[in-house]
Amino acid sequence: MQTRIHRIAADSPDDTNGIIAAIREGQIIPDHVIAVLGKTEGNGCVNDFTRAFATQSLTRLFADALNESPAQVAERIAFVMSGGTEGGLCPHWLIFEVDTRDGAPKGESPGLAAGVSFTPDFAPEALGRMEQVEATAKAVKDAMRKAGIRSVDDVHYVQIKCPLLTAGRVEEARARGQSVVTADTYRSMGYSRGASALGVALALDEVKASELSDDLICRDYSLYSTRASTSAGIELLRNEILVLGNAKGWDPTYRIGHDVMADALDTEAVDRALQRTPAGAQPSIDDVAALLVKAEPATSGTIRGRRHIMWDDSDIHPTRHARSLVGGALAGKLKDTRLFVSGGAEHQGPDGGGPLAVIVR
Amino acid sequence: MQTRIHRIAADSPDDTNGIIAAIREGQIIPDHVIAVLGKTEGNGCVNDFTRAFATQSLTRLFADALNESPAQVAERIAFVMSGGTEGGLCPHWLIFEVDTRDGAPKGESPGLAAGVSFTPDFAPEALGRMEQVEATAKAVKDAMRKAGIRSVDDVHYVQIKCPLLTAGRVEEARARGQSVVTADTYRSMGYSRGASALGVALALDEVKASELSDDLICRDYSLYSTRASTSAGIELLRNEILVLGNAKGWDPTYRIGHDVMADALDTEAVDRALQRTPAGAQPSIDDVAALLVKAEPATSGTIRGRRHIMWDDSDIHPTRHARSLVGGALAGKLKDTRLFVSGGAEHQGPDGGGPLAVIVR
Amino acid sequence: MQTRIHRIAADSPDDTNGIIAAIREGQIIPDHVIAVLGKTEGNGCVNDFTRAFATQSLTRLFADALNESPAQVAERIAFVMSGGTEGGLCPHWLIFEVDTRDGAPKGESPGLAAGVSFTPDFAPEALGRMEQVEATAKAVKDAMRKAGIRSVDDVHYVQIKCPLLTAGRVEEARARGQSVVTADTYRSMGYSRGASALGVALALDEVKASELSDDLICRDYSLYSTRASTSAGIELLRNEILVLGNAKGWDPTYRIGHDVMADALDTEAVDRALQRTPAGAQPSIDDVAALLVKAEPATSGTIRGRRHIMWDDSDIHPTRHARSLVGGALAGKLKDTRLFVSGGAEHQGPDGGGPLAVIVR
Amino acid sequence: MQTRIHRIAADSPDDTNGIIAAIREGQIIPDHVIAVLGKTEGNGCVNDFTRAFATQSLTRLFADALNESPAQVAERIAFVMSGGTEGGLCPHWLIFEVDTRDGAPKGESPGLAAGVSFTPDFAPEALGRMEQVEATAKAVKDAMRKAGIRSVDDVHYVQIKCPLLTAGRVEEARARGQSVVTADTYRSMGYSRGASALGVALALDEVKASELSDDLICRDYSLYSTRASTSAGIELLRNEILVLGNAKGWDPTYRIGHDVMADALDTEAVDRALQRTPAGAQPSIDDVAALLVKAEPATSGTIRGRRHIMWDDSDIHPTRHARSLVGGALAGKLKDTRLFVSGGAEHQGPDGGGPLAVIVR
Repeated sequence: MQTRIHRIAADSPDDTNGIIAAIREGQIIPDHVIAVLGKTEGNGCVNDFTRAFATQSLTRLFADALNESPAQVAERIAFVMSGGTEGGLCPHWLIFEVDTRDGAPKGESPGLAAGVSFTPDFAPEALGRMEQVEATAKAVKDAMRKAGIRSVDDVHYVQIKCPLLTAGRVEEARARGQSVVTADTYRSMGYSRGASALGVALALDEVKASELSDDLICRDYSLYSTRASTSAGIELLRNEILVLGNAKGWDPTYRIGHDVMADALDTEAVDRALQRTPAGAQPSIDDVAALLVKAEPATSGTIRGRRHIMWDDSDIHPTRHARSLVGGALAGKLKDTRLFVSGGAEHQGPDGGGPLAVIVR
Repeated sequence: MQTRIHRIAADSPDDTNGIIAAIREGQIIPDHVIAVLGKTEGNGCVNDFTRAFATQSLTRLFADALNESPAQVAERIAFVMSGGTEGGLCPHWLIFEVDTRDGAPKGESPGLAAGVSFTPDFAPEALGRMEQVEATAKAVKDAMRKAGIRSVDDVHYVQIKCPLLTAGRVEEARARGQSVVTADTYRSMGYSRGASALGVALALDEVKASELSDDLICRDYSLYSTRASTSAGIELLRNEILVLGNAKGWDPTYRIGHDVMADALDTEAVDRALQRTPAGAQPSIDDVAALLVKAEPATSGTIRGRRHIMWDDSDIHPTRHARSLVGGALAGKLKDTRLFVSGGAEHQGPDGGGPLAVIVR
Repeated sequence: MQTRIHRIAADSPDDTNGIIAAIREGQIIPDHVIAVLGKTEGNGCVNDFTRAFATQSLTRLFADALNESPAQVAERIAFVMSGGTEGGLCPHWLIFEVDTRDGAPKGESPGLAAGVSFTPDFAPEALGRMEQVEATAKAVKDAMRKAGIRSVDDVHYVQIKCPLLTAGRVEEARARGQSVVTADTYRSMGYSRGASALGVALALDEVKASELSDDLICRDYSLYSTRASTSAGIELLRNEILVLGNAKGWDPTYRIGHDVMADALDTEAVDRALQRTPAGAQPSIDDVAALLVKAEPATSGTIRGRRHIMWDDSDIHPTRHARSLVGGALAGKLKDTRLFVSGGAEHQGPDGGGPLAVIVR
Repeated sequence: MQTRIHRIAADSPDDTNGIIAAIREGQIIPDHVIAVLGKTEGNGCVNDFTRAFATQSLTRLFADALNESPAQVAERIAFVMSGGTEGGLCPHWLIFEVDTRDGAPKGESPGLAAGVSFTPDFAPEALGRMEQVEATAKAVKDAMRKAGIRSVDDVHYVQIKCPLLTAGRVEEARARGQSVVTADTYRSMGYSRGASALGVALALDEVKASELSDDLICRDYSLYSTRASTSAGIELLRNEILVLGNAKGWDPTYRIGHDVMADALDTEAVDRALQRTPAGAQPSIDDVAALLVKAEPATSGTIRGRRHIMWDDSDIHPTRHARSLVGGALAGKLKDTRLFVSGGAEHQGPDGGGPLAVIVR
């Protein structure tokens, strides 16, 4: 069994030409694709339609390539779009292929394993609450099972796309007499990300069910996952989950490791994550095939004791500042701007820092 | 003779408390101050009033401390405010003191030397044209003379604050029958920065007078200075120039070196600049007392072959993206966010890169 | 013959549910649709992907409804998306149906007539230059012919969607050794709008061919059309033209009139436009079925002698300010926010004002 | 006794030239000035330093004119700066003079009466809570007494400037073990405005003390004042209150009336407010010397049943959209852009609407 990834630049949210070319050249087999992560060039906030536009474009592409309906494509491939390429970040697609055919490459030592799962659609009033936490945890377990990962220790990254509240959805819930966690659409993104991350933490035994309750979501940030990366978007109503880890039986050409950035300047997390990839020749920065990381401003208002202005700037959202900062720090180290830096790290790593994973080849 | 610098954080554009405390404790002698560089937290563009607000606040502070009028303070101290602390950059003041008293420290080997000069006020129609270039070159020479720097090779950084056009200034010129270089206020900042930088290049023999003309300003970017850093602001009508270099006779406790970032990811420029500080123990990153650098998006639309979206984003100005990117890359290396990253690098270093100077202690 | 319009609210750029419902209920016959104008909720500037997203969604809808390919749909329906619903403007679709069947309603007095035409795709170097002006004028004439409008006096509005330059397109032209009118993508929108508007002015005898040249485009604003409304978008490479007027033989249930807003506060232009609809009972504000208008900030920096800050604000683009201002002024008069207010009025009406058309029923 | 107002345009937040000229020409007597309201050109949100910059500049001006210290000026004049001149709004100062000398003009019928009062400084934890409500109510009563207004029915507008929380202030409170109403600096502006408005409602018998509690602030919007206008700024720690009404004994040259905009399009509120000015010739729009109004987006997400996007736009803050909309609607009616439109109308008029006052001459 083999998991392969492809990193392909995009000229716009609907630019799938690079993927089409890779399919045509036989580098990507559409039937093997289980997930596409996209870094799109919107604001990453409420009215970022680049995510939905990308999803619509990708769905159409794979529907054509697979000769299936859009609905069928949506059931087989997770499209996880993360908006925001501030600073120098390069809009790009990360395509995950899984080949489980008999003749697929395999290996002795553990290799990159990937699995996808979905929750049911959430009602607006479920977002940011335990209902979302628990449904997410269940789906993470399901995705692990599909990936053949048995131990939670072998999970190195869980990427989730989750919904947000819009003014319309809030009204719809109110019309049914339901209260929502917040009527502020921008803040709803944080609640949805936070509840989803706690769902990962629950599934990976990083927190206990008894520790969790509605009241602690987006409040007690001492509870967090070191491997969750969650991203909210207007274009879906359910959580879409991609679990990444290492497992035996999978081709070790690709392997994954993770660590946690303690703060926005802790670029050494890359080195530590590289060291945590499973046995084999110690990989270097030049072997990095993909990097995934979460970014958010420290709530203290400082970085290593120095004031930052991310929370006080009403012209540029804090998540936009954070992505540009972390993206800049890591691009300066890796000399590559094709990084999957995702904003909004509620319950994802420590305050001001975030989980970081490297996939090496 | 001795040049000393102080790096003091600011909680807002009018927060001079740190400076007041340093004066009270005898660390800063107001009479020795020749320049204050400020990184303020506005947008760094046309309507960034944080620069003028800071200047007004600093002028008031030194007027009180020196018992002089604001006009007298403006004649003795250059206030060079650069707006924009995107990403994680820390708003702060860089205060330059020069002590030329008989008893001042001195040294055998060259030490940091600083000199300030001003051009006359410019009419709106002079901005972005040869008149601004030539007046700037003349003032740079004057500042070198004041700093006791004889060779242009010993100049490592020239920081300039220059004016911009506002709708009102454009109208005023038109009413007099004069044409301005552009009626677009935002673009006028670029022309003013570009002409000022070419003035530095001319003074430092980086370009020849015969190579220059109105038409080439902000057009032929193969002409540039490797040591100019220019910043435009609404709060002044003349160019204010701070020349920094090394010279014999000055206390070598502080020294300066420079190099050029080839692009936004070329963080190794810091190492090269450190190597170019004058003799003495080779300084390390931990010795950095201040870092000054220019940032701007590559006009190619790419960084090391990867697309960036800085020019196509109509919500966040390109200079804001560029400061956050370069600020992030350098903060990731230096583990310090108190960096003087200034946007808009027309004729300042190569396209997409920019001059970088380190002052070490 | 009959032209009918439908004004349908949209909850997002891809929300075509209202159109689908109208088709299902028989209110819209897909085969009759010749144009859809959309007011979408992006920034209306370079990176406004809501326009392309809407176009993709509408194309898909009509491809399904008509059982045609997307390419065939693009040849029969003009999709003119205008981004920006600042202030209180309501995102909505304006759908134009033309029924030329034998049994279609007709009338004695002139009724609303509509025709669509397209230019060929433009090379990047053609944008903002005479090539675009002339191709547009030709297409306007063609659209008039299709609408059966013989006299230019009977044309009351010409809505055009035109391309812009992106960093990529600029590079592509440069690689071929061609110069473009500007390398600034945001400014390219203005040039494309301006050249397209002059094309309308040329077709409608508002300017003479001998008066025009490359140099005057976006320079001499004394040349303008009183009936052009042009809007630039990233999603197309040609100009798409919708001509609206009154003509005999068309059902007079819908009629159109136009006038010019002298400045952003000249809401009386609505009354004047109503008076200019062809004979019949004098229509009132309550009869307005659609309003189309252009908005732009006065380059003088003032409105009736009072300063505005639209040009000096580097956080919000001038066109965004102008749409919210004009949209607010007109919504305050009409008590309806479903107004097609389009920004960027280069060569469209006098400086600071713009053409305004009302369609009454 | 006489209250006089002056409406003077400003070219920048520190442009006090118009006021200086009026003082020089004897139109303004500095000793009579009790309040200056300023519409400044910042974003009106957390990092809007134009308010503090204006306040510093005005304080300096009056300190010079009165030969008093800045602290003394701050005790005698209320500076109420409201940021945000979106759309076409004109930055300007509204200067209130009160002449109580023996020889001052007076009249039989009621005339404009004005009084100023201040609360003590608030600790961060008091903001947005009953402590702020009650201190405000007390100060409103005090300002009424100073203005000689006996009946709450004769109060037509209460303008308040109130503090906000910054990241630093939140940390300071936390360090003392205190909780704040929100750690989100932008949201803290809403809480501070809301509590201040309820303080007005309490003082004017619009709500009862028994109806109020911490929990209802910024939650139960059925509680509101029809005459409060509150504006939050970073530059102060207390509430500054200006009460405006009509009272006998005051020169009736200036009079005031108010009403409530039911929603953003209810421009007829101007006519109703004019009708509510006290007896005398019925004033018309041409008699308006100043207009003050609050603006905010309807939480329903709709205006008269049509969707607006103000809450869903993460690039431009909802208050900025609302000011441009209401400013546009009223400027379209009054043909004047010098309107004091203030954003953030929590507990100030009904949801989506706001109090409106006209001062006529």
